[in-house]
Amino acid sequence: MTINRTIRLARRPVGVPDATVWRFGEEPVPDLQDGMVLVEAQYLSVDPAMRGWMADRPSYIAPVELGAVMRAGVAGIVVDSRSESLPTGSFVRGMLGTQLYATAAPADLTRLDDATLETLPVYLGALGVTGITAYFGLIEVGKAKKGDTVVVSGAAGGVGSIVGQIAKNLGCRVVGVAGGPAKCAHVVETLGFDAAVDYKAGRLKEDLAAACPRAIDVYFDNVGGDVLDEALTLLALHARIVICGAISQYNSQSRSVGPSNYMALLVKRATMTGMVVSDYFHRSADALAQISAWIDDGRLNAHLHVVQGLDSFPRAFAGLFSGDNIGKTVVDVRAG
Amino acid sequence: MTINRTIRLARRPVGVPDATVWRFGEEPVPDLQDGMVLVEAQYLSVDPAMRGWMADRPSYIAPVELGAVMRAGVAGIVVDSRSESLPTGSFVRGMLGTQLYATAAPADLTRLDDATLETLPVYLGALGVTGITAYFGLIEVGKAKKGDTVVVSGAAGGVGSIVGQIAKNLGCRVVGVAGGPAKCAHVVETLGFDAAVDYKAGRLKEDLAAACPRAIDVYFDNVGGDVLDEALTLLALHARIVICGAISQYNSQSRSVGPSNYMALLVKRATMTGMVVSDYFHRSADALAQISAWIDDGRLNAHLHVVQGLDSFPRAFAGLFSGDNIGKTVVDVRAG
Repeated sequence: MTINRTIRLARRPVGVPDATVWRFGEEPVPDLQDGMVLVEAQYLSVDPAMRGWMADRPSYIAPVELGAVMRAGVAGIVVDSRSESLPTGSFVRGMLGTQLYATAAPADLTRLDDATLETLPVYLGALGVTGITAYFGLIEVGKAKKGDTVVVSGAAGGVGSIVGQIAKNLGCRVVGVAGGPAKCAHVVETLGFDAAVDYKAGRLKEDLAAACPRAIDVYFDNVGGDVLDEALTLLALHARIVICGAISQYNSQSRSVGPSNYMALLVKRATMTGMVVSDYFHRSADALAQISAWIDDGRLNAHLHVVQGLDSFPRAFAGLFSGDNIGKTVVDVRAG
Repeated sequence: MTINRTIRLARRPVGVPDATVWRFGEEPVPDLQDGMVLVEAQYLSVDPAMRGWMADRPSYIAPVELGAVMRAGVAGIVVDSRSESLPTGSFVRGMLGTQLYATAAPADLTRLDDATLETLPVYLGALGVTGITAYFGLIEVGKAKKGDTVVVSGAAGGVGSIVGQIAKNLGCRVVGVAGGPAKCAHVVETLGFDAAVDYKAGRLKEDLAAACPRAIDVYFDNVGGDVLDEALTLLALHARIVICGAISQYNSQSRSVGPSNYMALLVKRATMTGMVVSDYFHRSADALAQISAWIDDGRLNAHLHVVQGLDSFPRAFAGLFSGDNIGKTVVDVRAG
């Protein structure tokens, strides 16, 4: 009998989720029903958006129920199959949750035929939902084009680091906003951004203005708060703001802070548009083919922040909000 | 010798502009240069946007200089002409400022061949910049279409009252937000809106939700502040917010209040877009032909709030911010 290990949502967090919101458990894997497969998780995706899924309020997706296994993207291997369409040994991705084993219907999984054990975690990052978010957010929602000045916040994070690199590949001038000198050096030196602004340095307004001498055509926002507000003061005519996230606000225990400079939208005839990546899943093949080609050509660095073992998930998740990660965070479940 | 009377900007206002920001003067009308015409103002347009033009900060148009005649739309009559293209007696509209007489080049004026002395003020309202703002804001920026729920704030005001009536004519369900029972009764009973919400009644959240049982497809915002924030909580999927103004914020002496609920844009994949009417002037003929036809058919009420005499301009302007007007405010200069 195979024993599953699970991380369940024990209570709804107030502020930054600490260890007390999770409950670890062990339970037998049930017998596999006809048509289903058993997936052994290899990597878990750790995303800021999960914070929203933990809150009991209306959103673009139902909240995770108390007592349920936490919703999470997983890259894994089919270790048992009662479906002819998906044989044992297949690499797959799916929303299988924070656990070692999950049963799933093949229709709920994405088969990763090009993956290897070594490249598998990238399918949670640049070649997964993170990459799809960056690609469609920048190109479809942000309408970025050659010559544009593109600013991205959370620039060293999962989505932000891909956004900036795609923008560079499109021929944009790219400015990343990140926290601290190490991340700023990373986005310029390793990822090839044109400039980086350290929002923790205390000169956000001046530094962002200096980095954007021709104003901002596309602002891709992952953070909200002050960075969004300052970006609004630097918009070019007909600028586009992509609202992809607001990590600075997710753990707020008071009312969220709105962008006081939003009337810049009028002055600059600009647009602020929200996006949810699942709207683009039906078109993800094109995005992933392009990103994959860029990776192969050395034009896109799919850097990951890998933490070891299922038990490290709570700390890795909380670390998103203190900025511990450079690149997309994934948990290597195999190391548990 | 003809004597001009002028209202000049004496100092920049702090808070609501009171009488001390204006300087009244009399001065001779200069001799008319070749190619120019002399216009005698009949009606002045009084608009919330003028508050922005008085502030010394970057915007979509240069601020009015201290000591200059206040910028204002004017409908008037050519009383002297040294241009063959625009004879004496022509009705015209232009940005001629708060004064009785102005010299202008014909290229800077819009000829109003269909106007009469009686209908002239309407060319500052439904058949003027106000109507063009409402038409393109609702249809082009807001993409309103039959069956949509359209909410407009400042619903009894100049732009708002036209927005709501155009939306009705397009086949939308229309909800107006206005201050006080008289304005709410006006927009429903006189203008034909489906419902009105009195934002001063202390139940904005509940009343707006009750008036929009199928959520909001288009929110046309003239006011900002709490109304914008509550509208955000009621957006339909793919909703469009048109940022046309923010009259609740124009006289704020502290930092403007931003919409704390802006993350609803993400949840609902919605868009918030700013507009400036001058972007649409080259297309105004189509809008005005349609609005004119609706007025002729009795399907659009071009109600005006007319105040008497040039001297009443400062009070009428301040009255915009205390909500004195129902309909577009114009000054009947002839009554001075």
